[in-house]
Amino acid sequence: MGNNYGTIFKISTFGESHGKGLGVVIDGCPPGIELDLDFIHHEMQRRKPGQSKITTQRKEEDEISIFSGVFEGKTTGTPIGIVIHNTDQKSQDYSHIAEKFRPSHADFTYHTKYGFRDYRGGGRSSARETAARVAAGAIAKLVLKKLGIQIEGCVTQIGAIQCPDFQKYDLSKAEENIVRCPDPQIAEKMIDLVKEVRKDGDSIGGVVSCVIKNCPAGLGEPVFDKFHAELGKAMLSINAAKGFQYGSGFSGVTMRGSEHNDLLIKKGNKIGTKTNYSGGIQGGITSGEDIYFDVAFKPVATIMRDQPSIDIHGNEVVVSGKGRHDPCVVPRAVPIVEAMAALVTLDFYLRNQSTNLSID
Amino acid sequence: MGNNYGTIFKISTFGESHGKGLGVVIDGCPPGIELDLDFIHHEMQRRKPGQSKITTQRKEEDEISIFSGVFEGKTTGTPIGIVIHNTDQKSQDYSHIAEKFRPSHADFTYHTKYGFRDYRGGGRSSARETAARVAAGAIAKLVLKKLGIQIEGCVTQIGAIQCPDFQKYDLSKAEENIVRCPDPQIAEKMIDLVKEVRKDGDSIGGVVSCVIKNCPAGLGEPVFDKFHAELGKAMLSINAAKGFQYGSGFSGVTMRGSEHNDLLIKKGNKIGTKTNYSGGIQGGITSGEDIYFDVAFKPVATIMRDQPSIDIHGNEVVVSGKGRHDPCVVPRAVPIVEAMAALVTLDFYLRNQSTNLSID
Amino acid sequence: MGNNYGTIFKISTFGESHGKGLGVVIDGCPPGIELDLDFIHHEMQRRKPGQSKITTQRKEEDEISIFSGVFEGKTTGTPIGIVIHNTDQKSQDYSHIAEKFRPSHADFTYHTKYGFRDYRGGGRSSARETAARVAAGAIAKLVLKKLGIQIEGCVTQIGAIQCPDFQKYDLSKAEENIVRCPDPQIAEKMIDLVKEVRKDGDSIGGVVSCVIKNCPAGLGEPVFDKFHAELGKAMLSINAAKGFQYGSGFSGVTMRGSEHNDLLIKKGNKIGTKTNYSGGIQGGITSGEDIYFDVAFKPVATIMRDQPSIDIHGNEVVVSGKGRHDPCVVPRAVPIVEAMAALVTLDFYLRNQSTNLSID
Amino acid sequence: MGNNYGTIFKISTFGESHGKGLGVVIDGCPPGIELDLDFIHHEMQRRKPGQSKITTQRKEEDEISIFSGVFEGKTTGTPIGIVIHNTDQKSQDYSHIAEKFRPSHADFTYHTKYGFRDYRGGGRSSARETAARVAAGAIAKLVLKKLGIQIEGCVTQIGAIQCPDFQKYDLSKAEENIVRCPDPQIAEKMIDLVKEVRKDGDSIGGVVSCVIKNCPAGLGEPVFDKFHAELGKAMLSINAAKGFQYGSGFSGVTMRGSEHNDLLIKKGNKIGTKTNYSGGIQGGITSGEDIYFDVAFKPVATIMRDQPSIDIHGNEVVVSGKGRHDPCVVPRAVPIVEAMAALVTLDFYLRNQSTNLSID
Repeated sequence: MGNNYGTIFKISTFGESHGKGLGVVIDGCPPGIELDLDFIHHEMQRRKPGQSKITTQRKEEDEISIFSGVFEGKTTGTPIGIVIHNTDQKSQDYSHIAEKFRPSHADFTYHTKYGFRDYRGGGRSSARETAARVAAGAIAKLVLKKLGIQIEGCVTQIGAIQCPDFQKYDLSKAEENIVRCPDPQIAEKMIDLVKEVRKDGDSIGGVVSCVIKNCPAGLGEPVFDKFHAELGKAMLSINAAKGFQYGSGFSGVTMRGSEHNDLLIKKGNKIGTKTNYSGGIQGGITSGEDIYFDVAFKPVATIMRDQPSIDIHGNEVVVSGKGRHDPCVVPRAVPIVEAMAALVTLDFYLRNQSTNLSID
Repeated sequence: MGNNYGTIFKISTFGESHGKGLGVVIDGCPPGIELDLDFIHHEMQRRKPGQSKITTQRKEEDEISIFSGVFEGKTTGTPIGIVIHNTDQKSQDYSHIAEKFRPSHADFTYHTKYGFRDYRGGGRSSARETAARVAAGAIAKLVLKKLGIQIEGCVTQIGAIQCPDFQKYDLSKAEENIVRCPDPQIAEKMIDLVKEVRKDGDSIGGVVSCVIKNCPAGLGEPVFDKFHAELGKAMLSINAAKGFQYGSGFSGVTMRGSEHNDLLIKKGNKIGTKTNYSGGIQGGITSGEDIYFDVAFKPVATIMRDQPSIDIHGNEVVVSGKGRHDPCVVPRAVPIVEAMAALVTLDFYLRNQSTNLSID
Repeated sequence: MGNNYGTIFKISTFGESHGKGLGVVIDGCPPGIELDLDFIHHEMQRRKPGQSKITTQRKEEDEISIFSGVFEGKTTGTPIGIVIHNTDQKSQDYSHIAEKFRPSHADFTYHTKYGFRDYRGGGRSSARETAARVAAGAIAKLVLKKLGIQIEGCVTQIGAIQCPDFQKYDLSKAEENIVRCPDPQIAEKMIDLVKEVRKDGDSIGGVVSCVIKNCPAGLGEPVFDKFHAELGKAMLSINAAKGFQYGSGFSGVTMRGSEHNDLLIKKGNKIGTKTNYSGGIQGGITSGEDIYFDVAFKPVATIMRDQPSIDIHGNEVVVSGKGRHDPCVVPRAVPIVEAMAALVTLDFYLRNQSTNLSID
Repeated sequence: MGNNYGTIFKISTFGESHGKGLGVVIDGCPPGIELDLDFIHHEMQRRKPGQSKITTQRKEEDEISIFSGVFEGKTTGTPIGIVIHNTDQKSQDYSHIAEKFRPSHADFTYHTKYGFRDYRGGGRSSARETAARVAAGAIAKLVLKKLGIQIEGCVTQIGAIQCPDFQKYDLSKAEENIVRCPDPQIAEKMIDLVKEVRKDGDSIGGVVSCVIKNCPAGLGEPVFDKFHAELGKAMLSINAAKGFQYGSGFSGVTMRGSEHNDLLIKKGNKIGTKTNYSGGIQGGITSGEDIYFDVAFKPVATIMRDQPSIDIHGNEVVVSGKGRHDPCVVPRAVPIVEAMAALVTLDFYLRNQSTNLSID
């Protein structure tokens, strides 16, 4: 359980870091969508390991193989089965931790839950799992593109280095540097920090910010499935995520209502708001304004240092730091955040289609 | 859709602010639980309006009426149907906003989604809906009590006034003051601030913090239904919530892995961690350590001031500030946060029971 | 668990035979539907006990009380909460079976599953539960009416007395006699049989047949949620149901494909079929032809005779036959079958709305 | 939507008759189950095409490839991803029907629902899809085996040739003949009939009967998810199924309650019933007695004859009978019926585990 996401546009993912491969089944994709394979490939490249000198050096091309649900280049409405093979597993790298619980990894909790575990590279708990999400998210993005909805993410913080007011930037520029920060000057500082952290054999956290543009008003469901509640769940389900906020977020708590309220005004022939502290969502339902949010990521647990720990027999042991890893996962998290945002948005779009009778 | 929560311990809620009443159906409650009605009543009292001089003056006793699922004082395993009557509706108070969209309320978004709406007191989007959650959460708490699991929340911030390190306090003391802050000195300052805000006809935001204690290791499901992902969704589904973080949260992003990693150590005959930046969750699965988290609430939208707005015909109008309201909902949000935490925890506990074959 | 039905138009029911009452929450009803209370009342009357001399003599008016989801006479799109009070419980009638397992009732299985049970009138396992289904089904019928879809059921068999080719009759005539058989002559024979069975203190089974007319082509989902699979589940979930068939059903197995195949032909500007052995469904998806099906009901277990049995302590006991009961539930099952058919059809209609992008 | 089955032991299937292949993701399989690959292979062989002279001559070895969820030969509790490649597609065989709707196939309904379709071999509507079910069902059977539960199916009717009282036979003998009928004499007659039908270029229907043995009492959930309701849905979701009955089924309607009631008696230290007209289920919950049921299958639509029809442009056309097909699918349906029964039983077993608190 728990490996499925979505209500109408449903995905089921599978796969471990060092098994035969990963995959995803998408059930509920609208029929007739042209499947732009280049675009899907491009999204996979944005997430893949080894893409720059500040990421892990594991080499995976993350080529997808589509088994079903597509005919003559278009989706048929039946499930789309996708497989991604693992090609650069080095399982022997992990024999030294077969019986050891690595600090702040999921080793102990998986072992406790299931009685044993695939310890190679973290098995199912590895962020490698997110490749399947990005593949599914790319297809969701293709559908959203037909609907005119765009999703753009970027890195707005690494360690203490921040890039404030990310919405003022042209976010497409974020792809031009390896940390995916929309401000090139700040990006340089961030890159220097990540390099320094890597040299220390350490890791560092950061924040990904994202905006959903041109989303129609009316998406989201009262009361438990509010748009931002599902969005929050989707983001928090990404490996290493520690926090989520939208609109004014945590900083909004110090404001007064008279300041925080977004006054409704006419924008051409539509109704919009003067400010947007609400982050494009009121009462859990989209307002038509930009939806923006932030996701906090912790410094990843894998570090190149020796750490004391416990093994499965209860003995005190030392976990030595070796293997390939990302000193900072935040740049690679950008396409994952976007993918999850696409899944959430499309699912709510389709749910909303069922709400009003089409005869009216 | 969207008015259901849970996988095994499932709730379905209904009801509007100014209709006949509210209610909840709980499906999946284990049989044989003694239903302590005094405890449920006590939880309802903690949430009810009019409970102190800093809340709305609407008077609702929020008495629950149990229709089913209980026999000879104990749950039977069949659905528990609960009804709460509205008694102090003043629907005429709302005629002035029948056709107006109030700023930063859900009026515009509901109207857009459904074509029309019950405008009285916000209808379904009113926080009055949370009475049903607290009733269901109280029953979940009774089950958790049998399992030895406790949930305690408190207010740790109102406006800029903060109460740091909430876990060092005896949280039961938080109930001794009307803002539910565990530090009596800080509580006084918070109360003064809320009074000042009320006098200004304004509103103010805040933060509720909460801890789940004695939760067994192994709860939570990979990969989308991580414990903290569901917890985040549950919290963000509460009215006025803007952000969620657990463990080190947003402040963890500036830390290094070497500092943030929670080293595993022996604690008696169990395995625990030296620090707990992880907030009791690793890889989405509970570790046995305390689960702690924060929820940010915006300043509520209802203020006692005139505000420009738009009506359903697209005309510019003035929304005048009148009626009963909470200048700060955060103290009343504490039992709601706890209730949602109870629903999440119990549901994962029951899901986890199905994971391993009982014959083994 | 298990007390919910539906994917978009979702219902959650609660209530026991001899508790305070029953109810249902409907989540996902389209907004703007005028709620014809007279029609809902009329449907409730068709199911209620004590409606004729061949049913149980328990007197329940089954008046519904709507708590929410309706404003100014129309559905709002938010959950509709409905409560039905029990008024004619005679709980003392059941003290003699408090510790006894009645043969072919759910006493033993509920006791085994839950450890104890509300024994009064069968508790949750009583067919009284179906009142909530009929209330929800009546609302579904109101929505279907707007879509031009009709559902009509009738009794086509009681004991060995059959009414073949039920589709050739005007089914509205079935309401004109107390067994709800569309052929008045056969109805007389059925009534005589039921009276005879009652005099014997016994019970008898029967078949309800039903047709869904003007259902658009394209409803139903591959591969597990085929239209007839969900329809079958819905029918088999009704108390005392033992079998389900649609189209040619069990009698189709003796046919050859060359005979059974429904040839496609033009019907005006639409495509239809010459014969309809398929029962209006191909590959799990509706074809636009009439959907027809049969549901078999066993003779109910309550009989006015002494029967040997076992009690909860494992002792051999005698269960004496007393109390109020239906010698044949089949006539009262007609509105229940229709209600479940309405829930299935509407849910698939709404699911199908989400399939194709509304921009296309 | 609709390509998922199960609540705890959840499967998601994908794949078309003539695409790259098929597959299934199983989420919720208990950890620690030894995966007997020979057994899974054996089950696949029982379903595969070309297995005898009375089935289609398409040659598919239906070898499964397991991608994930298994480590050192045992399930890990994480999703099991399985892929089955298509190897003997002859897509060109289908060019003649690219634009034609075949009678009593899903061509017209899929085209109407989705706007276009993968016409090769019926695409997603092909019974080839059931290979994925059998793979998942084989794993479910391995879990049930640990629990002592057995599932055995056989053919009890082809055309008008019946094999009554199937439960009196040793059902393992059914595998000894190519129609899978437990009575060797009747099997011979059935084989002759199928051969005759094939010679005629025609097809014929039949009935598969099945028994679930040693299933513990207490499985199944009130009120919509009754054991037999889910079982019925699962069976009716199999291609060509037209009806389902359990216990006394349709023949029970002519019985009187005094005759049909199953008297409770002691069986050693357990409580059982003297007769079993109930088919092992009371009130939707298993009683511990054998669960037995029948599934009716229509004569398949593919016949070797010319038939008049309509094409996608609305023109009258002739569909010529050619290609490979089964004159009678019923023998190959036996392992599919068993697989679905295994999925239903295991899912209810796991659901039931969550019902009672494990501390009690």
